[in-house]
Amino acid sequence: MMIKTSPSDISKRYVGQQIDVYGLVLHVRDLGRKKFIIITDGKSILQIVYSGSEKVRRGDTIRASGIIKEDPRAPTGLEMVANNITFLSKSIDERFDQWSLRNMNKDKKIKYRALLLRLLEFYKVFEEYANVTQYLREYYRNLGFLEIFTPKVVRMGTESGSEVFSILYFDKDAYLAQSPQLYKQMLMASGIKGVYEVGSYFRAEVSFTPRHLTEFRGFDVEVNYIEDYSEIMKILEDSVKYVLSKLELSYPKEFPVISFKDAKQVLQEKYDIRLKDDLSTEAEKALGDYAKKEYDSDLLFIVEFPYDSRPFYTMRKEEDPKYTYSFDLLYKGLEIASGSKREYRYEILIKQIKEKGINPERMKWYLEVFKYGIPPHGGFGLGIDRFVRQLLELQDIREVVLFPRDPDTLEP
Amino acid sequence: MMIKTSPSDISKRYVGQQIDVYGLVLHVRDLGRKKFIIITDGKSILQIVYSGSEKVRRGDTIRASGIIKEDPRAPTGLEMVANNITFLSKSIDERFDQWSLRNMNKDKKIKYRALLLRLLEFYKVFEEYANVTQYLREYYRNLGFLEIFTPKVVRMGTESGSEVFSILYFDKDAYLAQSPQLYKQMLMASGIKGVYEVGSYFRAEVSFTPRHLTEFRGFDVEVNYIEDYSEIMKILEDSVKYVLSKLELSYPKEFPVISFKDAKQVLQEKYDIRLKDDLSTEAEKALGDYAKKEYDSDLLFIVEFPYDSRPFYTMRKEEDPKYTYSFDLLYKGLEIASGSKREYRYEILIKQIKEKGINPERMKWYLEVFKYGIPPHGGFGLGIDRFVRQLLELQDIREVVLFPRDPDTLEP
Repeated sequence: MMIKTSPSDISKRYVGQQIDVYGLVLHVRDLGRKKFIIITDGKSILQIVYSGSEKVRRGDTIRASGIIKEDPRAPTGLEMVANNITFLSKSIDERFDQWSLRNMNKDKKIKYRALLLRLLEFYKVFEEYANVTQYLREYYRNLGFLEIFTPKVVRMGTESGSEVFSILYFDKDAYLAQSPQLYKQMLMASGIKGVYEVGSYFRAEVSFTPRHLTEFRGFDVEVNYIEDYSEIMKILEDSVKYVLSKLELSYPKEFPVISFKDAKQVLQEKYDIRLKDDLSTEAEKALGDYAKKEYDSDLLFIVEFPYDSRPFYTMRKEEDPKYTYSFDLLYKGLEIASGSKREYRYEILIKQIKEKGINPERMKWYLEVFKYGIPPHGGFGLGIDRFVRQLLELQDIREVVLFPRDPDTLEP
Repeated sequence: MMIKTSPSDISKRYVGQQIDVYGLVLHVRDLGRKKFIIITDGKSILQIVYSGSEKVRRGDTIRASGIIKEDPRAPTGLEMVANNITFLSKSIDERFDQWSLRNMNKDKKIKYRALLLRLLEFYKVFEEYANVTQYLREYYRNLGFLEIFTPKVVRMGTESGSEVFSILYFDKDAYLAQSPQLYKQMLMASGIKGVYEVGSYFRAEVSFTPRHLTEFRGFDVEVNYIEDYSEIMKILEDSVKYVLSKLELSYPKEFPVISFKDAKQVLQEKYDIRLKDDLSTEAEKALGDYAKKEYDSDLLFIVEFPYDSRPFYTMRKEEDPKYTYSFDLLYKGLEIASGSKREYRYEILIKQIKEKGINPERMKWYLEVFKYGIPPHGGFGLGIDRFVRQLLELQDIREVVLFPRDPDTLEP
């Protein structure tokens, strides 16, 4: 075992033992004869009590050798009384001693993300992000779904009207993928039960909102043998419940469901908001409020969106083709997932592609597999960044992404 | 539970039960009075015996209702005697009945990947790929490392001399990331134990070899508090052993290690290959042969590469600065991972950046955190595609990637 002991490894079972512990110095209180040094590994801190004369500064990396003791005055109830400290590296900028990491402005918080992670409360955000992602993977892996990795460099521009980034790809036109949609659908032609993917996706829109990034991370799922779109909602609902229960958070027994038509009426009557074919930010917020008041639920499904606001691969309602077998999932008044039953019938799919103004010739590579038999299927994309933002009730999506990207932010 | 029962769910515990099973039809043998229908969900197949008169064709999706029976003549030892079959969707192209999926040529194998996955042996490749990725994640998560997600759209072009793809990013110059190297290093300034990332990376080289793609998937790790580079090799070695043991494959007790200098001599003496500062494909193959003969090992570490062939962030050997604290891991004669101890000392790092002909001004966003204290660290990048290719002894890296990308291949 070559991983070195650091603050998060220290527990009561070490009490009385002479060990080495590694960490980055977060804080030093120098009382002359004695120093109280707080070291961190992001996850945890440890107080080191040391009587040596070496100058220890914030940002230094040390290996401390000593005995672990219980002390109720120490921040974690445990501390090391060190008989020796070795410097593995030294901070070279004195200014840092004066900085307040907590009170940085927004821009600095992005620029110095790595330094910020020295504070447990910031580390926790990214740890939660990693946990949520892993729980989602776990859930779908346990269902027997295949984890897939689809290309991020693609031949076709947009599939749903969003703006995409162009790439100089040798002598060809190429784009950055806005989702794995077409790929995960194609794979349904294998007869497989379902697939999931965690990936980075891209949208080239000049928006500066607390919920949009130009590069975001999606958790995408596609499920085969779907007879009704409510089956997909149930799978999404169960996986979200799984994550919330892993995080020891409560959730409604059943996520309430409201149709787009009814939502429109509620919004008009109760919130004086008039909708056209899609939800606005304002409408999502109002519906979040409505779900809380009406159902005591942070989660709300909106179903059967108008076809005009959904992409070509969405299946239309048989009895009312102006509407679709589709849904959004709102969490605390923000859309975090969007999905539908897909149109899998070759001829109708071609028709819908044309209706949306796309030339089917350019999509042959996608359409081809629909001819050789494909089960009825459906799925969704869940925005991991948004999900975590809502989970932690943070103000801005940039707070949950290590190195966010927006039209102005390309560094670090 | 909304996930429908399909062939891979059927086990002996269903014998005697009346159930519904869903699947895609892979093969039909029609004996007039009786049909033997093989359905698949990728992972498994199931034989359905049916006496109804409906025409069933390859590519159809069916729900079969009936009783599960044991029958040693059935391919899996179990079959369903169906009393009813419902069509969920129909294949519309008759040609498919005549196709041989197994005997497709290379191009068709990429074009019709989704159809190919109907065959268990092809599905198994991608299942193994997903498993390897998950085992690696599992290993590093259990060590307490943080899973990170770094941007794929970056400000800086190349960090190691590889060609990169340009993106039209609003009014800015941007590129596709060739690795998460600089990001995972920056995060070490948090004092964190270690990080890992599974991501897509990009190289814009016009090469058509069985081991290069323009978009590949890497498993990247960075570890803090490293005093000697052999510590990183040990961590990599242990994680590779973990994966191999999960797959019930054998591995050497210790991976043999040879220095670049010694490898050079071995290659010259035993294989008549002359090296300059780096390994060639031919040299890797020869060293794979050497490791097998000399140590009975499929795995071999080459260490201490010349500085001239390594990127600026590699730490040089103290006593012999022409060489570095670096390593490659070869698996069956192919480099699958590359790593090093990193130069973490601000002034020396700047010096090395200049030596490699890069303007440090352009890297301020990366260099900044090195001033405020950063532990000595090191890490590696492992090519997942290459690892799985070697694991399964496949000829071409395109065989382990669902939708491969090379200078000519941008579809599907």
